[in-house]
Amino acid sequence: VAQRLEKFKTTIFTQMSILGNKHGAINLGQGFPNFDGPEFVKEAAIQAIKDGKNQYARAFGAPELNSAVASRFHRDTGLVIDPEREVTVTCGCTEAIAAAMLGLINPGDEVILFAPFYDSYEATLSMAGAKVKCITLRPPGFDIPLDELKAAVTSETRAILMNTPHNPTGKMFTREELEAIASLCIENDVIVFSDEVYDKLDFEMDHICIASLPGMYERTVTMNSLGKTFSLTGWKIGWAVAPPHLTWGIRQAHSYLTFATSTPMQAAAVAALEAPESYYTELKRDYSEKKEILVKGLKEVGFEVFPSSGTYFVVVDHTPFGFGDDVAFCEYLIKEVGVVAIPTSVFYLNPEDGKNLVRFAFCKDEETLRSAIERMKLKL
Amino acid sequence: VAQRLEKFKTTIFTQMSILGNKHGAINLGQGFPNFDGPEFVKEAAIQAIKDGKNQYARAFGAPELNSAVASRFHRDTGLVIDPEREVTVTCGCTEAIAAAMLGLINPGDEVILFAPFYDSYEATLSMAGAKVKCITLRPPGFDIPLDELKAAVTSETRAILMNTPHNPTGKMFTREELEAIASLCIENDVIVFSDEVYDKLDFEMDHICIASLPGMYERTVTMNSLGKTFSLTGWKIGWAVAPPHLTWGIRQAHSYLTFATSTPMQAAAVAALEAPESYYTELKRDYSEKKEILVKGLKEVGFEVFPSSGTYFVVVDHTPFGFGDDVAFCEYLIKEVGVVAIPTSVFYLNPEDGKNLVRFAFCKDEETLRSAIERMKLKL
Ligand SMILES: CSCCC(=O)C(=O)O
Ligand SMILES: CSCCC(=O)C(=O)O
Repeated sequence: VAQRLEKFKTTIFTQMSILGNKHGAINLGQGFPNFDGPEFVKEAAIQAIKDGKNQYARAFGAPELNSAVASRFHRDTGLVIDPEREVTVTCGCTEAIAAAMLGLINPGDEVILFAPFYDSYEATLSMAGAKVKCITLRPPGFDIPLDELKAAVTSETRAILMNTPHNPTGKMFTREELEAIASLCIENDVIVFSDEVYDKLDFEMDHICIASLPGMYERTVTMNSLGKTFSLTGWKIGWAVAPPHLTWGIRQAHSYLTFATSTPMQAAAVAALEAPESYYTELKRDYSEKKEILVKGLKEVGFEVFPSSGTYFVVVDHTPFGFGDDVAFCEYLIKEVGVVAIPTSVFYLNPEDGKNLVRFAFCKDEETLRSAIERMKLKL
Repeated sequence: VAQRLEKFKTTIFTQMSILGNKHGAINLGQGFPNFDGPEFVKEAAIQAIKDGKNQYARAFGAPELNSAVASRFHRDTGLVIDPEREVTVTCGCTEAIAAAMLGLINPGDEVILFAPFYDSYEATLSMAGAKVKCITLRPPGFDIPLDELKAAVTSETRAILMNTPHNPTGKMFTREELEAIASLCIENDVIVFSDEVYDKLDFEMDHICIASLPGMYERTVTMNSLGKTFSLTGWKIGWAVAPPHLTWGIRQAHSYLTFATSTPMQAAAVAALEAPESYYTELKRDYSEKKEILVKGLKEVGFEVFPSSGTYFVVVDHTPFGFGDDVAFCEYLIKEVGVVAIPTSVFYLNPEDGKNLVRFAFCKDEETLRSAIERMKLKL
């Protein structure tokens, strides 16, 4: 294996899903719904396949999808963008992240991350040769330590890679926090990569896209995807919205990483993005109920549950159960209790920081959530 | 844009397709069929979507597809491989190439390429920081200059990145050439990346997978895809077959570049790979007819046409028409004649080497091929 990837292991999602399947455990680990996406989106994919939309799409996105992404971005932020020059369609948000790092970051560039972070951030920054600086968000609120951030961002900083609503914690960056990030970025000429795939799962406050703050659009890459919002995580349609000078680098990397993204799935994504607002309202209502069931249950089991404002995840402290660390706890949970959760230590530069915390996902039908809670009540 | 991608332009396929569309030209440029893939494969995708196979696949491939790839590899090469440890499913062969380079090549590693080469090779090698050495294949036969190759491969060489049947020339590497490569690789402990996406379009001789030569499997990454053989270039399902120690690096890069590949399309790929041999026989018969039409027509138009043994491409010398270079010729061809071809100079380290050559694709219905020929006869 090349040095740039030497320190990384099989992704924790893969590890835990495989172990969970082996033991017949209920999977509240990897973030995928155990229910299907909406019929109208599936129908659109089927129609596209039947209609023969089966050859290469344009490398940076089928024109209709670039337009649909631009319209949604306009609806969400009020900003008017050019679909032909400011949108790149990718193989999921994961590829958008990789293309942004490989397309825009040079070896030695300093990039600031917030820990805990989605694992691909560190790996793609390593592929790009970046120098990573890390700000740790700490329970219970996982608020940004603004003084630490101010001290960290200097003229040496090339970029901040952030994520709101935040996986794994469910923390949503507040307007005050986003404004602090924005003013530091403008002052120090820093660009922002913002992973906002959970933007429509904003329960406790309204999601704010950092690109919509004054002076920020021109220095921000906003990344999103179809999978979370439309419960179709296996379709792998993502996108990056960025001003033309940043889009250029992303497109160049994308052209040579995957070239283009599944044509019929792009047609279906167009249909999805045309969904009325009521689709999102219902989605959020459904997820609120699931969240309530899981959070209440986890508290009854005896965990300290930290407040989650967005995403379909919630983080808990497992120390009441007397395990040394998160990995040991999760292995016990799978093998002896029959429930999969995700240990969080792999999401920190210093794994010690996450050793008390594990993440549960509530993107599952209510019966599954209840069964998992029951198992934990019985055997923990 | 990051330095690693600074020298690259928008891919020539994208450039030419966009220019062609603008001028209403017949597209014999980018290699995608203008007819649809087989019904049974489309049906399998539709069924998978209906059946709710819409969430994340396993990162390195749905178990059924890994198995189907291993079976096909066995049928094609006689080699028995472990689908769980030696197959990685990717977002098209393009991603397999990127994952192999980023997962296995370190900065400064020497990699040998044959020019003309598919453009992503050089770009992904640049992302990996490789030192590229280039052996040029020259018309009319595009044979490998074995003495040059022998002189080039040394103990400093880490890998050879090759492609047979060869895009853009249609050259197929002969057993003698493959054996020469194999013995140099074994002698100098060199690994081989072999892009064999056109393996089923082997018209003039039987395709030989270099991994099947004695001593080669353990040092070879064989890359292939669904798109070319099943006329579904827009579905973006590819794979890499390699021994476990090489597969590890590929999977690590893949996990963080795209994580996983479209789940319903993987289910359809399983159906495709179970096609009977008669499917391939018919495919080849159809393509032989198309090839004959194009080759005969191009000769009548007045091109020097070089023999193509495999792929759905043929390369010609355009100098009889008095244009300075391939790009100027192709621009004239699009704007004044109404036909898209691909200039080849971008496929060489030294663009001068390709300036007399352009590539035509015959993955089009016969009427389209005949119309293109007619236009050229009339206006060239
Ligand atoms: C890409 S696999 C992980 C899915 C996910 O986003 C998560 O579980 O955090
Ligand atoms: C990935 S776009 C180019 C398609 C192709 O393989 C070719 O035209 O050479």
